[in-house]
Amino acid sequence: MLEKIDLSKKMGKKDFKERMEVLDPELGRLQRACKEKGIPVIIVFEGFGASGKGTMINRLIEPLDPRGFKVYTTQSETLEEHYRPFLWRFWNMMPEKGRISVLDRSWYRILLNDRFDKKTTEKQLGYAFDEIVSFEKLLTDDGVVIIKFFLHISQKEQAKRFKALLDSKETAWRVTEDDKKRNKHFDEFLRINEEMLQKTDRDNAPWHVIEAQDREYAAAKVVSTVVNCLQEAIRAKERRDALPKLPPEESAQIRQDPYRTSALAGVNLNKALDKEEYKARLRDLQARISVLHNEVYKRRIPVILAFEGWDAGGKGGAIKRLTQAMDPRGYEVHPVSAPNDIEKAHHYLWRFWTALPKAGHIAIFDRSWYGRVMVERIEGFCTEEEWRRAYKEINAMEESWANDGAVVLKFWMQIDKEEQERRFKERQENPDKQWKITEEDWRNRAKWDAYEVAVDEMLVHTSTTYAPWIIVEANDKYYARIKVLETVVSAIEKRLK
Amino acid sequence: MLEKIDLSKKMGKKDFKERMEVLDPELGRLQRACKEKGIPVIIVFEGFGASGKGTMINRLIEPLDPRGFKVYTTQSETLEEHYRPFLWRFWNMMPEKGRISVLDRSWYRILLNDRFDKKTTEKQLGYAFDEIVSFEKLLTDDGVVIIKFFLHISQKEQAKRFKALLDSKETAWRVTEDDKKRNKHFDEFLRINEEMLQKTDRDNAPWHVIEAQDREYAAAKVVSTVVNCLQEAIRAKERRDALPKLPPEESAQIRQDPYRTSALAGVNLNKALDKEEYKARLRDLQARISVLHNEVYKRRIPVILAFEGWDAGGKGGAIKRLTQAMDPRGYEVHPVSAPNDIEKAHHYLWRFWTALPKAGHIAIFDRSWYGRVMVERIEGFCTEEEWRRAYKEINAMEESWANDGAVVLKFWMQIDKEEQERRFKERQENPDKQWKITEEDWRNRAKWDAYEVAVDEMLVHTSTTYAPWIIVEANDKYYARIKVLETVVSAIEKRLK
Repeated sequence: MLEKIDLSKKMGKKDFKERMEVLDPELGRLQRACKEKGIPVIIVFEGFGASGKGTMINRLIEPLDPRGFKVYTTQSETLEEHYRPFLWRFWNMMPEKGRISVLDRSWYRILLNDRFDKKTTEKQLGYAFDEIVSFEKLLTDDGVVIIKFFLHISQKEQAKRFKALLDSKETAWRVTEDDKKRNKHFDEFLRINEEMLQKTDRDNAPWHVIEAQDREYAAAKVVSTVVNCLQEAIRAKERRDALPKLPPEESAQIRQDPYRTSALAGVNLNKALDKEEYKARLRDLQARISVLHNEVYKRRIPVILAFEGWDAGGKGGAIKRLTQAMDPRGYEVHPVSAPNDIEKAHHYLWRFWTALPKAGHIAIFDRSWYGRVMVERIEGFCTEEEWRRAYKEINAMEESWANDGAVVLKFWMQIDKEEQERRFKERQENPDKQWKITEEDWRNRAKWDAYEVAVDEMLVHTSTTYAPWIIVEANDKYYARIKVLETVVSAIEKRLK
Repeated sequence: MLEKIDLSKKMGKKDFKERMEVLDPELGRLQRACKEKGIPVIIVFEGFGASGKGTMINRLIEPLDPRGFKVYTTQSETLEEHYRPFLWRFWNMMPEKGRISVLDRSWYRILLNDRFDKKTTEKQLGYAFDEIVSFEKLLTDDGVVIIKFFLHISQKEQAKRFKALLDSKETAWRVTEDDKKRNKHFDEFLRINEEMLQKTDRDNAPWHVIEAQDREYAAAKVVSTVVNCLQEAIRAKERRDALPKLPPEESAQIRQDPYRTSALAGVNLNKALDKEEYKARLRDLQARISVLHNEVYKRRIPVILAFEGWDAGGKGGAIKRLTQAMDPRGYEVHPVSAPNDIEKAHHYLWRFWTALPKAGHIAIFDRSWYGRVMVERIEGFCTEEEWRRAYKEINAMEESWANDGAVVLKFWMQIDKEEQERRFKERQENPDKQWKITEEDWRNRAKWDAYEVAVDEMLVHTSTTYAPWIIVEANDKYYARIKVLETVVSAIEKRLK
């Protein structure tokens, strides 16, 4: 692709000025329209060294309201970033609805400079393409507009620009040894860039290659492309908003299917432990967890545990027994409830990605990202299309974590309807536990059958080799807690081997 | 996913009979409706050994009209198949519009049994997932319905079924040593199947997991699923057909874009060779091609050359000089014109896939699959959506070939408008060449500017590292022919190293 492109395009200063007099006010207007319509925009700049990314960004933002955008620069990763999956830092750059993020280099770094400089491992290269494509898909499915530029200059032009920079004391520092190496082996670096462009050019997030030998031509094409993309995005949003809103159909949320695949039906809830045995095993397991927690920290292994289950299923009790033996500096419990306003202005997975602990720490989620396919599905807080694609989005997220070396386990605390009623009543009658039970718990209980369909589907679609669900038979609390602790211990031990 | 599924589902014989009395006639009706609407259907059966694939297929086809479907079985690959990309044999199983192909095992074999048996190479495993996903996407985008079943039984049930087969002389041969090995290492094989299901479950071609412990339940679920999928496919087709047909807009086919990226603009057409030099270099190059052709055959390297260019650009002359030195048993020239009826009843790439030579042979296409993004685009023979997605479909096809070790080169014979006119007139005036020039050539010539936009876009979007375009400056025939031969020689030599 790149080597076929005619780089001789030019634009006179006068012509440039005339065009920008039309484009600049239009861009300002589009920014306001995106804000009003709640459209988040990401503009990515990639390209060869000295191809003018900084200049282009400066020219682009000139007519924009500075309160509505932010420019991020992606350098080599910091230690904070190194101890997390490579996409983590970009989740932190995501624009809220109606805002614009401009990225000077981006998640593509891992496939370009870092790859050429051999900072990207073979293992990372194996999954980075897939993770990037899934990441962009998830964003655009959620209504984010992604505009990706690749600034293209020739080897000769780059050498000329490097020389000009090197000739002045003020700018010489900007040309690194790695830059020179990339210019010297331009063909090889070009091939790496080509491969990246080929594999990541998608309809939902296409690449725009900019002939960047002539700065006026390049700037005019960049601004004009942004204008076109935003105009199209606003038209598309208007078309979507004009569609009649269908009321959430109960039947669409939970279909009666005589052949539905299930996971919960076969669970034996009679499993139990007596108090003596429970105490002895708990002591033993907690001692092992304490040792493993140290080991996990030293070896920098991320551990992510999610707890879901029926109300009163015993999540809290299990988490408590798990953390009792841990060093509080090395774990964090995240109680998850309805998203706040800032979280609502982002992708629903954003709050979980950004909460990701550093490698070596243990993150425990009391309820989790699975709310999307349970409560949000059942209550109609999201559309059928949204919860249906969530299975794949969630799998992709957990796979990213596992690719980064994380232990990811998900526990479903399973009790039956009678046991739940017993526990609800016990809570109501016990003044110390009354706070634990609300009207909403009873309302949810009335939807038990619908939840059962949703949970079955969730367990089947999202139990993966890299992030399995563990169904915990939890009618007996002792048995349940021991099973949780044993599973965590054996998964960590396996990972440490 | 698999290990979470409750396999205890059962169905009584009476219940089964009652259901089939409703489903069978409906399935027959749906087959006729698909035929009438020209919907091609592929039904894939995968699953564990002895899970009942054959039984399911027999039960499924019972109510079908035998003239409208065909059952294919995928065994280990034959030598014919081995010398071609792994997808090749499945292109040969593709149903025409309105027909049904039922596949007992499929393209997933490379990721399942062959992988477990270590017949799949690491290299193949690296690209097979992507190729399969692209392949299915290309088919469903073209209106093909793909229904994929995975038949699931437990290790214990499998062992029981193997034993029953082994106990009888008539059926013992059906259980191979590899089958026994897979049963013994069921967990490991299960993990491979899990990974396949996770990576290839897409909205356009989802997996249907069938609990296959109980044959009645399984058969009822299979038939019921096919009925649902076909009903939905017919509804979707009716919705699409009901949309108002927009007349092809000239402006939509060829947009005027002041910033369009181009490849042809910078080409220097003054390059030329004198007759003496031409003759000497031609002799030398043809001698080398003769040697290389032998080498290519011995090393089993597939070579695929496509020729495109302006009318009278000199494709024929270049191909003639190229083949003069080759052993006629080792190459084939495919002149490509408008598709015939059978070709039209398939995906537009089908005729090129099925024409693929065995490794070691050289395939030369005089015009090619690029018709889609040139003549079909300009004449409105396909929709904008279709030619736009063709860039990626074509890249994926050529990448499959390159992954299989092929040398893939594409030549664009570039002349200017004046040179074309000169050649057209020469043809008209020369009685021996008059057959080469038709009214259509003059009509195409009138659309030169539109073609130029389409060709530029094609060259930029489909010149890849694995299958580059070579723009041949062809105003001078001598120069053009030598450039073609030299390029072929050096690409093959590079590949032989």
